[in-house]
Amino acid sequence: MNQTIQLADGNGGEENNKLINAIFFEAYGNDILRKNEDAAVIEEGTLAFTTDSFTISPIFFSGGDIGKISICGTCNDLAMMGAKPTYLTCAVMIEEGFAMDDLKRITASIKTELAKNGAQIVSGDTKIVPKGSVDKIFINTSGVGKIAHKGISSNNISENDVIIVSGDIGRHGAAIFANREGIDISTTLQSDCASLWPVVEKLLSGGITPTAMRDATRGGVAAVLNEWSKQSKICIEIDEVTVPICDEVKGICELLGFEAYNLANEGTFVLAVKKDQAEQALHILRAHELGQNATIIGEVTQRYTERVVLRSEYGTSRFLDLPTGELLPRIC
Amino acid sequence: MNQTIQLADGNGGEENNKLINAIFFEAYGNDILRKNEDAAVIEEGTLAFTTDSFTISPIFFSGGDIGKISICGTCNDLAMMGAKPTYLTCAVMIEEGFAMDDLKRITASIKTELAKNGAQIVSGDTKIVPKGSVDKIFINTSGVGKIAHKGISSNNISENDVIIVSGDIGRHGAAIFANREGIDISTTLQSDCASLWPVVEKLLSGGITPTAMRDATRGGVAAVLNEWSKQSKICIEIDEVTVPICDEVKGICELLGFEAYNLANEGTFVLAVKKDQAEQALHILRAHELGQNATIIGEVTQRYTERVVLRSEYGTSRFLDLPTGELLPRIC
Repeated sequence: MNQTIQLADGNGGEENNKLINAIFFEAYGNDILRKNEDAAVIEEGTLAFTTDSFTISPIFFSGGDIGKISICGTCNDLAMMGAKPTYLTCAVMIEEGFAMDDLKRITASIKTELAKNGAQIVSGDTKIVPKGSVDKIFINTSGVGKIAHKGISSNNISENDVIIVSGDIGRHGAAIFANREGIDISTTLQSDCASLWPVVEKLLSGGITPTAMRDATRGGVAAVLNEWSKQSKICIEIDEVTVPICDEVKGICELLGFEAYNLANEGTFVLAVKKDQAEQALHILRAHELGQNATIIGEVTQRYTERVVLRSEYGTSRFLDLPTGELLPRIC
Repeated sequence: MNQTIQLADGNGGEENNKLINAIFFEAYGNDILRKNEDAAVIEEGTLAFTTDSFTISPIFFSGGDIGKISICGTCNDLAMMGAKPTYLTCAVMIEEGFAMDDLKRITASIKTELAKNGAQIVSGDTKIVPKGSVDKIFINTSGVGKIAHKGISSNNISENDVIIVSGDIGRHGAAIFANREGIDISTTLQSDCASLWPVVEKLLSGGITPTAMRDATRGGVAAVLNEWSKQSKICIEIDEVTVPICDEVKGICELLGFEAYNLANEGTFVLAVKKDQAEQALHILRAHELGQNATIIGEVTQRYTERVVLRSEYGTSRFLDLPTGELLPRIC
C-alpha cells in the first residue's frame, strides 16, 4: 500500500477494492459487509440498508444535480437488492458562503426524487464548515428499504443466467466530463441519473426473479461484471457488438481514449436473469422509459473463472479488467 | 434568511434551527422528521434510524479522534431513543494525500467503539477527493438500533419529571477549543467523548422508564433544554449551583467569556425522569463510570412555558436562551 491516499483509491475499481480490504475490512469487517452487495440485508432478510456520500463536481450538471443524484444513488442501491426505498437520512456538509438559492434548488431536486421512490427522509444532519474546508457541498444519504423479493445476490450467478443491461452505457461519466471540461455537447448528452425503483418494481411484479442486479456507478459496467465474476466464481462473456453506447459517448471515448465500460452510470443497471425469464425481462424493461434500450449483452460460462471476456464481432476476444487509475474523480 | 450560508447556520442553536425549518423541512418535511427526536422511530416503533456527519478539527484530540466520535455520535443518538445500536453504515470522504497511518488509527478507534456498543458496520462508502476539496477527512455514520424501551420522546415531558445530567458539562467543547488554540491543559482536560449505550442499558434494565434523553452535543445543555421546553410546551427551571462543571471548563469559560451551558458534550446526556424514579436513576447512573457525577439539576414547571430559567443560589433568576452565533465551528 502507498503511505498516503491516492485519488485512484476511490475509483470504484482495483485500487478502491484494495483500500477497502486492507484498511476498512481489516479493521471492522464482518459477514454482512464482506458480502459486497449494493446494500446490506438485515433483520432476517426483510430490510436492506446502505449508505453513499456524494462529492460530485460540478454540483449542477446536464441531467441532474447533487440533490438528485444523492437520492437516486442510495435508492438505487436499495432497488438493486429488490428493496423498496422507504426511509432515508440526509446529511449535508456545506461550505460557509454557499448560495442559499443553490441550496434551495438542491433541496427541490431531493423532494422531486423522493416522490419518484415513494421514500421519505426521516433524519437529517447539517454541518457548516469554514470556507476552504469543503468544496461547496457534500451530501450523504443512507437508506433503509423493505425487501420485496428476497435472495437477490451477486454471489449466486450461474451458467443459467444471461447478462442484461437496462440501457446505453457510460452517459453519466461522459456528461460530467463534458460539463467539467466545457465540451459543449450538453444539449444532446445528458447524465442517465434516474431512480430505478419504478422499473425494478415492474420487473418484480411482472414475475421476474433476478439473480443479481447492480447499478453500474463508479467503475462502470467493467467494475460490476468483474466483481460479479469474482463473487460468483464465473466467467462472464460479453458480445461487444450488442452493448448499447450512444454516439456522444462513443465520440468522447474516441476523442479521449476512454473505455465506455469504465465510465460511470447513475440510472443504468446490469441484471443477471435466468435464461427462461430473459425475454420477459426485456419485454418489461423496454416498456419502461428507463429501459427502452435494454439488451442481452452476454452469458455466463466457465471459460476463465473470475474473469470477464469481451468477444468482438470478428471472433476475437480480450479480457475486460477492473478499472485502474482515476480519470474522473468526483464523478458522484 | 441570508443569501449565503453562514457558519452560525450549523451551530446547533437558533440559526441552525431556522435553516432546517426554512430549507430542509420546507422541501421535504414529514411527520417523522418534524418530531425532532435524536433518531427517527420507524417500523411500528421497533427500530430507530439516525445519521450524523463528522467534520471535527483537529481529527485527533484529547479524549478521542474522528473515528471514535463518528461511532459514539450516531450510537448515542440511538441510545437516547432507548435503542440498542445494531447496524451502522460508515462513509468516509478523504482528501488526496491523507496519511495511511492516520487512516489506520481512525479505523482502529472505530473498531474499539463498535465493540462497546455491540454494533457492526454493514455498509460503507469511500470517496477520495482531490487535494483542497475537503480538509483531511469527513466521516458520515448512520445507524439503525433496536428499540428496547418504546415511547421515549422529547415531546412528552411534564411537571412530573425532574431534569438530570449524567455528568459535568462542556468538556468536549472546551477540550477541542484548547486543542485548537494550543492551550496546554490537555493533560487534565479531556473530551467526554464516549458511547452511552452501556449506561443507558443499565438504566432500562434497572426499571427506569425515561420520559426523554438527549446527548448534549452541538449547542450544549442550553440547546437540549430549550428544545425540550418548546417541544413539550413546558418551563424548565435549573438550579445553577447544582450543575456540575469541572474546574478546567470553568477556567476556559471565565478566560474567554463562554457559557458552559453552550459548550458541546459528546458523552454527557440530559434526562427527563419521573420524580418517583429519580433517586433510582441517580443510583444507577452513579454506579457507572460514565455517570459518576450525575445530578438532578432542575424541575419542570409552567412558570414561563417554552423557556428555560436559571435560578442562582442568591434567589435571582435569568433566562437561558438557545445559543446564537458560532464560536466553535467543526466541533463534531
